[in-house]
Amino acid sequence: MITSTSNNKIKKVNALQKKARLRKEEGLFVVEGIKMFKEVPKELLKEVYVSEDFFENNKEEIEKYAAGKIEIVSRNVLEYMSDTVTPQGILCLVKQPEHSLVDIINLFEKSKKNKNRFLILEDIRDPGNLGTIIRTSEAAGVTGVIMTLETADIFNPKVVRSTMGSIFRLPFVYVKDIKEAVESLQKCGIKTYATSLDADRYVDEISLSKNCAFLIGNEANGLHKETCELADELVKIPMDGGVESLNAAISAAVLIYYHKLAK
Amino acid sequence: MITSTSNNKIKKVNALQKKARLRKEEGLFVVEGIKMFKEVPKELLKEVYVSEDFFENNKEEIEKYAAGKIEIVSRNVLEYMSDTVTPQGILCLVKQPEHSLVDIINLFEKSKKNKNRFLILEDIRDPGNLGTIIRTSEAAGVTGVIMTLETADIFNPKVVRSTMGSIFRLPFVYVKDIKEAVESLQKCGIKTYATSLDADRYVDEISLSKNCAFLIGNEANGLHKETCELADELVKIPMDGGVESLNAAISAAVLIYYHKLAK
Repeated sequence: MITSTSNNKIKKVNALQKKARLRKEEGLFVVEGIKMFKEVPKELLKEVYVSEDFFENNKEEIEKYAAGKIEIVSRNVLEYMSDTVTPQGILCLVKQPEHSLVDIINLFEKSKKNKNRFLILEDIRDPGNLGTIIRTSEAAGVTGVIMTLETADIFNPKVVRSTMGSIFRLPFVYVKDIKEAVESLQKCGIKTYATSLDADRYVDEISLSKNCAFLIGNEANGLHKETCELADELVKIPMDGGVESLNAAISAAVLIYYHKLAK
Repeated sequence: MITSTSNNKIKKVNALQKKARLRKEEGLFVVEGIKMFKEVPKELLKEVYVSEDFFENNKEEIEKYAAGKIEIVSRNVLEYMSDTVTPQGILCLVKQPEHSLVDIINLFEKSKKNKNRFLILEDIRDPGNLGTIIRTSEAAGVTGVIMTLETADIFNPKVVRSTMGSIFRLPFVYVKDIKEAVESLQKCGIKTYATSLDADRYVDEISLSKNCAFLIGNEANGLHKETCELADELVKIPMDGGVESLNAAISAAVLIYYHKLAK
């Protein structure tokens, strides 16, 4: 049993919770809680840390999913490693799932679905928003989520938690060049819609393409002007009253579900 | 200029930021930042606290909205009163807007809109979710939001902030008895839909009534069984992949916008 927080493995997990750069260098991230632990694909699971007490009470279940990868640690060590205030008693080190833009386009080309939808996120900064967008995207049957490098880190512990496991099931990719990404989709016949308050038309006034990508901008500033110009069309969501804008996760949800549910 | 945090007025504002019960007893709450301050209806504005530096730079604007109600305070006093980490320099004491269920029903009966929609929130606990729901509701043209007493306090500083001013424009009411509220709406011909994972039908499989209310349950547990039984119909939002549920604010947004945008 590991009882010291100065153990090198423990120090590394603690650092991975806090440092996006280290996560990127190592290609690793941390997943907490029994429910999320059970969602981790076997081939990505590297190490499992369980507090003594939690292991006693959940031995069978944990061994079923992680035989041979389990390290028992004392409660205080687990608390040191955890990003949450009251950790359950289990966390694991996981390899980052990797997808490329080409993978996502291949998925689309092999898709037998009648309609396909994508999200392109430009500089979404709030981890809670990003996590919610990932979870909602999976639910709305999004084929893939494309993000700029300035978007929050999807492997940030807060994002990971709020994806509720969708991080393992929904293809996503960070791209250096949003222009290239938009053009790659367009070449495949996917129509791109930039959400902008300057749009002339509301989303319900246009006939959305069967295959489409919605571009969602930063919480404070929206999409860059140059990004709007890349898109095939600008759209806006109708808003009553004195509301100036919607939360980014809400905008994304309204659009992808509108496309999904439209007859 | 007030320079001491032991000043009684200052202590009261600080307490109002923290204590829901005190806010309720006094019928007051605190609003922060210049943008929100300008949204406060004149008849609700009681006192305005501005730090010396912020007042110097925004004198004209502040006086235009709050002549006679301004108290200048030192920066450290303002920081003591604020709920945010880096306060702008202005906050105000505001009377709580009051609406009754009867007011909301009257609004509906006088409404000239072709369609009307309502939300009934049962025990939504997360302040961020509640604030987002209020903001999205105004945007989606919701006539009124009805909440159980166990729902988060709408006058909590985090909720107030995330409503982005909708708290002053969207009618809402807390009700003791959700059954009574549901029945009052039903008597006016408003059809009530309970969102439940146990529903047999998806929202796009039914023809939603022109006037309807969506019941949204607690983040962890959903709607109580008894509440589901009150509703005219159960509905669920289609979800692909391995997603078990949507975030409460996302569910509310998808439903009210689906109703708004449906032809």
